Amino acid sequence: MTIRTQHTRITLASRPQGLPTLENFRFERGTVPQPEAGQLLLHTVYLSLDPYMRLRMNEGTSYAQPVGIGEVMVGGAICRVEVSLHPDYHAGDWVLAYTGWQSHAISDGKGLRKLNNLERPSLALGVLGMPGFTAYLGLLEIGRAREGETVVVAAATGAVGAAVGQIAKLTGCRVVGIAGGPDKCRYAVEELGFDACLDHKAPQLAAALAAACPQGIDVYFENVGGAIFDAVLPLLNKDARVPVCGLIAHYNDTGLPEGPNQVPALLSTLLTKRISMQGFINFDYEDRYPAFLQTMGNWVKRGEVVYREDLVPGLEQAPHAFIGMLNGRNFGKLIVAVS
Amino acid sequence: MTIRTQHTRITLASRPQGLPTLENFRFERGTVPQPEAGQLLLHTVYLSLDPYMRLRMNEGTSYAQPVGIGEVMVGGAICRVEVSLHPDYHAGDWVLAYTGWQSHAISDGKGLRKLNNLERPSLALGVLGMPGFTAYLGLLEIGRAREGETVVVAAATGAVGAAVGQIAKLTGCRVVGIAGGPDKCRYAVEELGFDACLDHKAPQLAAALAAACPQGIDVYFENVGGAIFDAVLPLLNKDARVPVCGLIAHYNDTGLPEGPNQVPALLSTLLTKRISMQGFINFDYEDRYPAFLQTMGNWVKRGEVVYREDLVPGLEQAPHAFIGMLNGRNFGKLIVAVS
Repeated sequence: MTIRTQHTRITLASRPQGLPTLENFRFERGTVPQPEAGQLLLHTVYLSLDPYMRLRMNEGTSYAQPVGIGEVMVGGAICRVEVSLHPDYHAGDWVLAYTGWQSHAISDGKGLRKLNNLERPSLALGVLGMPGFTAYLGLLEIGRAREGETVVVAAATGAVGAAVGQIAKLTGCRVVGIAGGPDKCRYAVEELGFDACLDHKAPQLAAALAAACPQGIDVYFENVGGAIFDAVLPLLNKDARVPVCGLIAHYNDTGLPEGPNQVPALLSTLLTKRISMQGFINFDYEDRYPAFLQTMGNWVKRGEVVYREDLVPGLEQAPHAFIGMLNGRNFGKLIVAVS
Repeated sequence: MTIRTQHTRITLASRPQGLPTLENFRFERGTVPQPEAGQLLLHTVYLSLDPYMRLRMNEGTSYAQPVGIGEVMVGGAICRVEVSLHPDYHAGDWVLAYTGWQSHAISDGKGLRKLNNLERPSLALGVLGMPGFTAYLGLLEIGRAREGETVVVAAATGAVGAAVGQIAKLTGCRVVGIAGGPDKCRYAVEELGFDACLDHKAPQLAAALAAACPQGIDVYFENVGGAIFDAVLPLLNKDARVPVCGLIAHYNDTGLPEGPNQVPALLSTLLTKRISMQGFINFDYEDRYPAFLQTMGNWVKRGEVVYREDLVPGLEQAPHAFIGMLNGRNFGKLIVAVS
């Protein structure tokens, strides 16, 4: 018997009010499930932690069903096939699976993506996975960024933001990032090649952003919301595009912020500047995935797009790391090394 | 000498705070200007009054320059050529011109649209002009309305709203209008063929709208804003489109409304339902105008699109009628019969 014969998992113990706490999660142990004919036993190597998971902890439907109390927290993971009773898979295969916060899972093979050709399987959770695809889609397809335009993205060193900025640079855009703290800002400029990166913790963000965007903003890739959106709005150019892929600043909100109600000002800006604002979710665009993987794969291979992973060892660390991410404490794509 | 030798005009006397008053306008008389070589003397037959003019009365740029104090109020008009010293025009020609609130104007011919073939020239200010084109563009091109979808439009008996609803019916949509008072609502259903029309003055608009849209809302043609937008938002379907062409409910705002700030709720709805919201202005789409004129012209000729004009006699009535329109007192396309 090895340690792998113990099944560990993290379930939702209770629904958070605002920022989650460790008490909202429960670490459980059990015996490893056994696959039946046509099934696979997967064991998790890397678990992805992503902001959208916060929404799944709430009651009520967002764009997907909430996680039930007592259920395993959802999430994408890189797994190896431990036992295969399925004709299409063999023990040792690497797969991308949506198995969540647990060490093992049974699968019937549906929805798995084989990763045998990847040199570094964890990239399928970041730059070559959902975050990278979200960046690619949002910037090029929804945002229609073009050479010479100015692109602004917040959470600039996060998995999505870093990809947005680098793809925008490869497209010939001026790129201004917003990130938390001087280390992240320096990394965005020096390693990712952003033209500028502003610290959202510094005072007078609006003035700094205006100075960094002398030609205004043509694409604001919205993955944050809050004060950053307020600073961006007056700088948007005629015909600007605002793809909306996330609102991490609001995921812990327990109510609406104080007034005044800025909706009329927002609508008025959309009208007078003919701005297009569109929410999107990567899984609506599966048909674009092969083209993304080809293009982004080449960029990564040639070093034109770089990435940074923030690896946390051990499934039991997932709740703490996840709460840290909601507070902006991760630096790069947050991944739990489960085994 | 006929009465036409007197030039009458209405200028902006002062900028309104909130709803304009008669004191913001000045009625002036003068002598009719004389055309030079290459010029035309136009005399105004019909002047269009449209909500966007309220924005031009404000200081600061909207999508166009403001009217200066002492300048003639802007606006589209149907004119006849009185004197032509221009090779392309003859006395008696009907033209659509952007000559504003005055009885006569000098033109060098630029930007004029000849109307010689129209049986009823005033239609070029309404169903076959800017309002009809705005409806056509916003519904079909920006809103991408499709058969079987539910379309909601407010100011349903106004020049734009009435065209939106009728084109949506011709496209095979369910159409729900919102209008002020039982007479307008009855007209929208009985004459324009809307499936339902709700009185925005009646209590519980949100509940009534939900009941009238059992399949939710796929296209909300935004030309009003305010409480109607708030009622629409929770009913929007996945992949809904919100073309934004006007915000008449806010044109007289002197500040932002009280809180809470609904922007996070709006962004969250855009995200989770993948909604697209886009401001647009008809003059960005001049290349679509011929197709519009052909299609809409045929609909009007065959009686498939009907129209209603609210004719006010005399230029001196324009300010009063314009203020009435901002209060919802017009019924149909508001036009001043100038001469």
